[in-house]
Amino acid sequence: MHPRPSGIVTLLTDFGVKDPYVGIMKGALLQRSPKITIVDLCHAIPPQEVAVGAFGLAAAIGRFPDGTVHVGVVDPGVGTHRRMLAASVHGCYWIGPDNGLLGTVLGPTVANATPGSPGGPVAEVREIDCERLGTAPESRTFHGRDVFGPVAAWLAAGRYGFSALGPRVEDPVMPTDSGGVGDGRIVYVDGFGNLVTDVAGAAIEGARNVFVGGRVVPIHATYGEVAEGELLALVGSFGLLEIAQNCGNAARTLGVERGATIELRS
Amino acid sequence: MHPRPSGIVTLLTDFGVKDPYVGIMKGALLQRSPKITIVDLCHAIPPQEVAVGAFGLAAAIGRFPDGTVHVGVVDPGVGTHRRMLAASVHGCYWIGPDNGLLGTVLGPTVANATPGSPGGPVAEVREIDCERLGTAPESRTFHGRDVFGPVAAWLAAGRYGFSALGPRVEDPVMPTDSGGVGDGRIVYVDGFGNLVTDVAGAAIEGARNVFVGGRVVPIHATYGEVAEGELLALVGSFGLLEIAQNCGNAARTLGVERGATIELRS
Amino acid sequence: MHPRPSGIVTLLTDFGVKDPYVGIMKGALLQRSPKITIVDLCHAIPPQEVAVGAFGLAAAIGRFPDGTVHVGVVDPGVGTHRRMLAASVHGCYWIGPDNGLLGTVLGPTVANATPGSPGGPVAEVREIDCERLGTAPESRTFHGRDVFGPVAAWLAAGRYGFSALGPRVEDPVMPTDSGGVGDGRIVYVDGFGNLVTDVAGAAIEGARNVFVGGRVVPIHATYGEVAEGELLALVGSFGLLEIAQNCGNAARTLGVERGATIELRS
Repeated sequence: MHPRPSGIVTLLTDFGVKDPYVGIMKGALLQRSPKITIVDLCHAIPPQEVAVGAFGLAAAIGRFPDGTVHVGVVDPGVGTHRRMLAASVHGCYWIGPDNGLLGTVLGPTVANATPGSPGGPVAEVREIDCERLGTAPESRTFHGRDVFGPVAAWLAAGRYGFSALGPRVEDPVMPTDSGGVGDGRIVYVDGFGNLVTDVAGAAIEGARNVFVGGRVVPIHATYGEVAEGELLALVGSFGLLEIAQNCGNAARTLGVERGATIELRS
Repeated sequence: MHPRPSGIVTLLTDFGVKDPYVGIMKGALLQRSPKITIVDLCHAIPPQEVAVGAFGLAAAIGRFPDGTVHVGVVDPGVGTHRRMLAASVHGCYWIGPDNGLLGTVLGPTVANATPGSPGGPVAEVREIDCERLGTAPESRTFHGRDVFGPVAAWLAAGRYGFSALGPRVEDPVMPTDSGGVGDGRIVYVDGFGNLVTDVAGAAIEGARNVFVGGRVVPIHATYGEVAEGELLALVGSFGLLEIAQNCGNAARTLGVERGATIELRS
Repeated sequence: MHPRPSGIVTLLTDFGVKDPYVGIMKGALLQRSPKITIVDLCHAIPPQEVAVGAFGLAAAIGRFPDGTVHVGVVDPGVGTHRRMLAASVHGCYWIGPDNGLLGTVLGPTVANATPGSPGGPVAEVREIDCERLGTAPESRTFHGRDVFGPVAAWLAAGRYGFSALGPRVEDPVMPTDSGGVGDGRIVYVDGFGNLVTDVAGAAIEGARNVFVGGRVVPIHATYGEVAEGELLALVGSFGLLEIAQNCGNAARTLGVERGATIELRS
């Protein structure tokens, strides 16, 4: 039912790499389970930008071995009484604060969790019971070290099964900023200035252009089909429509940011 | 007496991540001991800022499995005749140049090393004997690769015991910039602009405010107790008093830098 | 003949660390071979700067255990019909697009591959046969995840031997920007502003100064031999002549960039 732990834990945070915080969090994991493999998914989520973190976590769906434990820490409410969650879905485990960070991963799966609903993966979500697990936070500011990391390490090493982490949760916080398909919005701007939309590659059939930032940009299959400096739209590696510029920075050229709307055109 | 190696090595350097230097240093470790686990503690120490590196190394005390080998390389004197040290204290091993970088880790422990002195951990420090270990530096600029990394890998894998690394040292260089508790100074500014002081959480009893940068900042338990944009002081994850700004950058707001003094007020 | 895999894979890319791309590529490796050790060689190659990537890859020669698989992804032609290569040379494996990225690693070895030619290591290069290996690219933009990573993981874990990866290639693309020794040019500027030349340490015999950026800079053995703020040239950790500034940034001080020429002077 729940996948067998792979012994691999990934970390996504807004900690940045200037400070020893990520290293110290890894120490907290290794203190519990010295043999696990830890992979940095991303530590450059803009501080406290939960929706960007939610996108980054969802990018890991299907991209790691079954039974991998994915930890997300973008946690403006750390130290207050928000819940801490663990979820089992998409063949992996997902751990983070209950503030929408797991929302894109859970999105359609929570909808599908209605008994008897057809198709799609079904998520099981639990609230981490710190008292029962013996992981009462030492600090009020660093639950990645004090709770999320330790729980991930125990789960990855098989010390606790998923069902032992705490009681079931039926109402996890979902993102106000929906990551659903078909909205026609920019949901992520990567470091190269590529504008990733929430339009699934399968949904662009018939469209030949994208209207974005006041410009009409043609849809192509790959960068090489346009000249250097030209804008194009293509289905990128996330499986989503992206607006890019061959040998350039589309975000800068178009003056477009995360949240901007786009339109498909024939 | 000395802890059993955990097989884990952490690295703290001022190498940055623009260049392949950290990767090449890891290669040097893996050439000696291919099975060890290497963890990045921090590579963003400002170039040659030994005191900042000393703070970062000390942040690892108690945060990794016993027997972990912590390597620090912030080494303005590389290529000159400074000693290279290994220390055993706090249940772990610590390796680096003899320039004060290990000073905060050793600080109170060296004082305690007087025979018959009461309580506290006691450090044993040794000078790395390159000739005996067969690790004469290949270069005069990259002893992280040529000496510190190899020695750490051998120690972590149990090829050499700690006592075999070289003769005892009784007078390691201690930081001019003391990291001792109670000075009332900013000792670290993190990437979010939090101002970490050298005042231990246990030492603030009775105080209700902090005077810093010409402003009186109230002490609270967590960020959530003040409105967005407000300054506060709190005991942070290092166990030290920090000055922070909820959803802001305290360093920028206060115009305060590392080394500034603070005062506790009632 | 070909080295036994060490189980270690290094990654050099121009992906940066702002996005989850490196993490996702690691997931692709671990999905194929969960037990391998992955090391970041460098992810800060300037976007699409193949020659800089070629220098970084070559910096790994001799610096990792025999049988390590080095993957380079700096790939402006991704999605077009450029070949994808794997090479066996210098005791290791090297994987990347056929655009010159492997050129500095292969450089002299390809020349030496003429049957009967004297001395030096000899490279064997093969074209990755995606169809045969069952690793047809899922995307047209992320072959690090779809092809290079998986092939590296299989090779590292011994699932495929080197010869099974595809047919032999006798004409890999070599860099237009030659990394050959003796040209007297700046081939790499590191994050500290050190100017790394293509002049091997062994080739400076007799020279006492370097002419660079309109200045005459003295050759020394180590930083400590000049005062703070002074320029010097020395044989750096790559084994190449570098121009540096003690406690300063030589690139900024001299106004010199990658590609500039230098002259040895007596």
